[in-house]
Amino acid sequence: MTTLPSPATKSLDGTGVARGIRAEVAADAVELNLAGTTPRLALVVATDHGSSAWYVRQIARAASAAGLLCDVIDLGPEAGPEQIRSALSRLSADPAVHGIMLQTPLPAGADFGELAGAIDPAKDVDGANPVSQGRLAAGLPAHPPATAAAVLALLDHCEIPLLGRSCVVVGHSNVVGRPVAQLLLRRDATVTVCHRHTEDLEAYTRTADVLVVAVGRPGLITAGHVGRDAVVIDVGTTPTPDGGLAGDVDHAAVDGRVRVLSPVPGGVGPVTTAQLLRHTVRSAAALGGGR
Amino acid sequence: MTTLPSPATKSLDGTGVARGIRAEVAADAVELNLAGTTPRLALVVATDHGSSAWYVRQIARAASAAGLLCDVIDLGPEAGPEQIRSALSRLSADPAVHGIMLQTPLPAGADFGELAGAIDPAKDVDGANPVSQGRLAAGLPAHPPATAAAVLALLDHCEIPLLGRSCVVVGHSNVVGRPVAQLLLRRDATVTVCHRHTEDLEAYTRTADVLVVAVGRPGLITAGHVGRDAVVIDVGTTPTPDGGLAGDVDHAAVDGRVRVLSPVPGGVGPVTTAQLLRHTVRSAAALGGGR
Repeated sequence: MTTLPSPATKSLDGTGVARGIRAEVAADAVELNLAGTTPRLALVVATDHGSSAWYVRQIARAASAAGLLCDVIDLGPEAGPEQIRSALSRLSADPAVHGIMLQTPLPAGADFGELAGAIDPAKDVDGANPVSQGRLAAGLPAHPPATAAAVLALLDHCEIPLLGRSCVVVGHSNVVGRPVAQLLLRRDATVTVCHRHTEDLEAYTRTADVLVVAVGRPGLITAGHVGRDAVVIDVGTTPTPDGGLAGDVDHAAVDGRVRVLSPVPGGVGPVTTAQLLRHTVRSAAALGGGR
Repeated sequence: MTTLPSPATKSLDGTGVARGIRAEVAADAVELNLAGTTPRLALVVATDHGSSAWYVRQIARAASAAGLLCDVIDLGPEAGPEQIRSALSRLSADPAVHGIMLQTPLPAGADFGELAGAIDPAKDVDGANPVSQGRLAAGLPAHPPATAAAVLALLDHCEIPLLGRSCVVVGHSNVVGRPVAQLLLRRDATVTVCHRHTEDLEAYTRTADVLVVAVGRPGLITAGHVGRDAVVIDVGTTPTPDGGLAGDVDHAAVDGRVRVLSPVPGGVGPVTTAQLLRHTVRSAAALGGGR
C-alpha cells in the first residue's frame, strides 16, 4: 500500500489575526480618547446560558485591554421583550454609548429581529438590526454581524481571492450564513447557500474554492465534502462535555486534504470579538464626542 | 440523421397568472372601498426613458382597471436628489397614499438605495427601502420588490417544489437577483447566485432545477446552459429595435430542452405589475382608512 504525500494544510491563526485587529483598535481608541471620546460598548444580556456568559466575559476583557469601556447590562433570563427593548432604546439614546450588542439566546417569546430594531443603526456594531442587514444588502454603509465580518477578515488576511470564485456557505441563519453570503456576494464571488434541506450536500461543498460552515453540528463536514484546494472556514462552536468547543468540520479527516483550514477554537472566534471592538471604535469615530 | 423526440416545453402564461392576481386585487379593492378606503398608489418618476414611460402607463392602467387610484408624480429627468426625496417624504406622510414606487432609472447623482430610504416601509410596495430588504432577510413582514415577488408567484402558480432544490439565480442586482435569492432561501431552496464574474457559468446553470435569469443580456442563456428538467424563468427585458422586448434566454435554442420556460414578453412582466397592485391593496388594508 502506497501512501501519497499529503499536501500540507495551512491552519489559520485566528488568534494572531485577532491580535493584529486589537492592536489597531487600541491605537484608534488612544486617538479617540485624546480627542475626548472614550469608545463605549454596551452588551445587553437576558440569558443565563453558560457559553453566553463566557463570550460576554471575553468581550469585556478584550474591550478593557484595548482601551474601550464596556458595560454589561444583565437583565436576567426572566426579562420580558418590553424590558429588553427599553434597555436597547435607552442605550441608543445615550450619547456616551457608541456600540450596542444584544446577546443571544433570548428568553422565550422574544424575537431577535424585532428587538434588534430598537438598536440605533449607527451603534449596531453586531449588525443585528434588520436596517443594518438591508443597508448591507443595498451596498450602503452598515456594520455586518461581527462573526460574518470575522470570516471575511480571515479570508482577507490570507489574501484568498474571492472575485468569481465558487464560495459555498453551509447554514442559512440570519446571524451568520445569510450575512456571510451577502458579504461574499458584495465581493463578486459566486455564492451558494446550502442548509439542512439541501439534497446531496457533498456535491456542492466538494467543488467549493472557499467553504464556510456555520451550522452547529460537529463532524458534519468530513473528507468526502472537501476539494483538494479548498479554503475551509469552520464557524461552528458547539460546547463539548469537557468544556471545550467543537467546530462543524472533522478536522482530523480533512487535514492534509485541503489547502487552508480555520481551526476551532482559535479561528473565527477570537476574530469575532476583535471585530466587534473594531466596529465600536468606528462607530465612536463616526458619532464623535458630541453625542 | 435521427431526430430524438423533444420533450415538450411548457410555456408559462404570465398574462394568465397576472389576470388571476388582478381579479383578486379588484375584489380586495371593492371591499376596501366599501370600508371607506380607496387604495392609492403613487409612482414617482424622474426620467424620460421610453421604456419607463411605457411601464408607468401599464401600471396606471392596470391600477384603474382594478379599482385603485394611481398618481404619477413626474419630476422630470432634471430633478435633483433633494426634490425626489422630498416628494417621497410627502407621499409617505400623506394618509391617502398606501403605496409608493420610485421608478428607475434615476438622474445622475441620485442613489436609489439612499432615496428609497425616504419611503415609509409600510407603503414600500416595491421593496425599495433598504429597511424592507433587511426585514425580508430577517424573516420579518415586508414587501419584496415586485419583480422578485412575481418570480415566486409564477413558480408557485406552477407548483414548482423549491424546498431543498437547486435554484440558480444569474444576476446579483439589488432590484432582482439578490431579492429573488433571498425569497428562494426563505423557501429553503439551495440557492446559488451567479453574475458577470462567475467563472464557467454553464457548470452552475446546467445543474439547476430552477434557473432564474435577470441580467439584461439577450441570448446569454443557450442550449448548453440548461438541464433537461429545468424550470427557466427569464426576467430579462431588453428593448429591441422593432419596439419589442428580448429576454436573456435564447428561447428558440432551449425550447424542447427544458421542462418549463417563462417567455418574454408575457412571463414575469405582467405578473410584476399585478404584484405591485397586490402589495398596494395589502398596504391599504394594513394602514386602514384612518390614515
